[in-house]
Amino acid sequence: MQAIWLENNKLKYRDDIPVPKLRSGEALVAVRKAGICATDLELVRGYYPFSGIPGHEFVGEIVESPDGPERIGERVVGEINVTCGTCWMCKRGYPNHCKHRNVLGILNRHGAFADYLSLPLKNLVHVPDAVPDDAAVFVEPLAAALEIVEQVNICPTDNVLVLGAGRLGQLIARVLALTGCKLQVVARYDRQKELLTDCNIPRIGGSDARGSFFDIVIEATGSAEGFDLACNAVRPRGTVVLKSTYAGDFRVNFSSVVVDEISIIGSRCGPFEPALRLLQNRWVDPTVLIEGRYSLRNALQAFGRSAQPGSLKYLIQMGE
Amino acid sequence: MQAIWLENNKLKYRDDIPVPKLRSGEALVAVRKAGICATDLELVRGYYPFSGIPGHEFVGEIVESPDGPERIGERVVGEINVTCGTCWMCKRGYPNHCKHRNVLGILNRHGAFADYLSLPLKNLVHVPDAVPDDAAVFVEPLAAALEIVEQVNICPTDNVLVLGAGRLGQLIARVLALTGCKLQVVARYDRQKELLTDCNIPRIGGSDARGSFFDIVIEATGSAEGFDLACNAVRPRGTVVLKSTYAGDFRVNFSSVVVDEISIIGSRCGPFEPALRLLQNRWVDPTVLIEGRYSLRNALQAFGRSAQPGSLKYLIQMGE
Repeated sequence: MQAIWLENNKLKYRDDIPVPKLRSGEALVAVRKAGICATDLELVRGYYPFSGIPGHEFVGEIVESPDGPERIGERVVGEINVTCGTCWMCKRGYPNHCKHRNVLGILNRHGAFADYLSLPLKNLVHVPDAVPDDAAVFVEPLAAALEIVEQVNICPTDNVLVLGAGRLGQLIARVLALTGCKLQVVARYDRQKELLTDCNIPRIGGSDARGSFFDIVIEATGSAEGFDLACNAVRPRGTVVLKSTYAGDFRVNFSSVVVDEISIIGSRCGPFEPALRLLQNRWVDPTVLIEGRYSLRNALQAFGRSAQPGSLKYLIQMGE
Repeated sequence: MQAIWLENNKLKYRDDIPVPKLRSGEALVAVRKAGICATDLELVRGYYPFSGIPGHEFVGEIVESPDGPERIGERVVGEINVTCGTCWMCKRGYPNHCKHRNVLGILNRHGAFADYLSLPLKNLVHVPDAVPDDAAVFVEPLAAALEIVEQVNICPTDNVLVLGAGRLGQLIARVLALTGCKLQVVARYDRQKELLTDCNIPRIGGSDARGSFFDIVIEATGSAEGFDLACNAVRPRGTVVLKSTYAGDFRVNFSSVVVDEISIIGSRCGPFEPALRLLQNRWVDPTVLIEGRYSLRNALQAFGRSAQPGSLKYLIQMGE
């Protein structure tokens, strides 16, 4: 099959990759579309030593399913953490933190930038007809945005700041707006600003946010400057959510974190079913973020464009 | 009056300091005993630009009180944050985070290493007869230890790790043991270890704690190494409480904080009344931490001893 292959920080298009062999409980999925996100770009930069097929945002169709043949033909998205179900974290209800997990296209499992991928049948979530492929391919990052409200109680009366309005920041802003909170977003690029204006989400300049008094700040830039601004813009006893891929070390002064009793909360993968409900009800329309579509053969161009500052979502479409 | 004076990172004994003039609502307190803590030592090292009389842990007696003469003669401890009562944080119930606050011996207000200090009458909390001066002088740091359970729900079934068993670490361990949680403490010095053994608090070596799976870790060393170990010893979705005075910048890798969805919570001053209840019921006996007593005239020696690695509590006793 065709796939994008990552090795030694180099991406390559290949058409000689064998179709994944299924292990017990797994199904084979023909990938229809897959999205490129910041984690993929960081993997290429060496954020994590991954070799193989990257890609973890996808929508596809089950084409083989020895342990559940009735699901063949089903249109699905896939929970990317493949878990043991028996370790302490799995049993405690946090399977995404399974000690023995592998992660689609990120950790010890080939990913979605390929004609086919394999995942356990239990990881594959049915996509309702009302959700088109272009929206379904956003379920994984939309679930990640929802993880914020899974971890932190955002009150309708809260003042909330989102730093960064890229691929993930846009989804976060749209999800948080649904809480009714008083939301403001720091956006850097014109297209990002337009997209926020289009859905009535107010913006604030970074320098205006500095020294202000937000109850909750979502850091979605992944930069040291963003973290510094987040700690500066949050009120005492407030919460900073780290919602990005952070490569490398930051210099942090914990004195203000202690004096102001700030909470800093790391946030990663989120729940798929609620993301599908938001899409089904059209409460969030992520398809406006799509900037380009490429075939697997031309996927490296899509990676190049994704890495441009201010870029939004690029999709790889299979069978094109 | 006599006082210890801090200026340009130098401490000096002086006997020419005027007794504080009272502002409206304030009382004059004759200080009986005052304790030296890590924040005092950091102030001397320049952690915060403070000039004047340091000291914020004390027990004393009200000797002047124009706005409440009935309280003259009362034995008191003092809430160190002097607040406006009208700003947003005060009204929201977080007066310790008052935007306009001054803080006894730390920020824009002379402190307790003196014959007399002044505080608003409302800051002065009655000490029950059952609590001797030697215990009452620990109310402020004991309240700071209690702030942890004010901020974080520590379940009786939680595995909890305290890093550091110095002045504050010992109090934290004693307070957390009362929750019934499974507590272990990393202590460095023999005397610290003995004190934990004396009250049946289990210890664990730092290297054994590394890579373990604690629900909650309290970082009470104030060091970069302690922070690193805290993040390493906490389980995914667990909580690290920063409970120390942090001077300077740390290098932090936020990748594991995000991937493991760890919460990092800064923690500062705590509630006085609960601290007095613990002392009154003898659920915590902090007096075992006292290593030496000095007069104001000899207070600089007490500072020198306090700065020794592994040292515990040194008291300055007035009228000696």
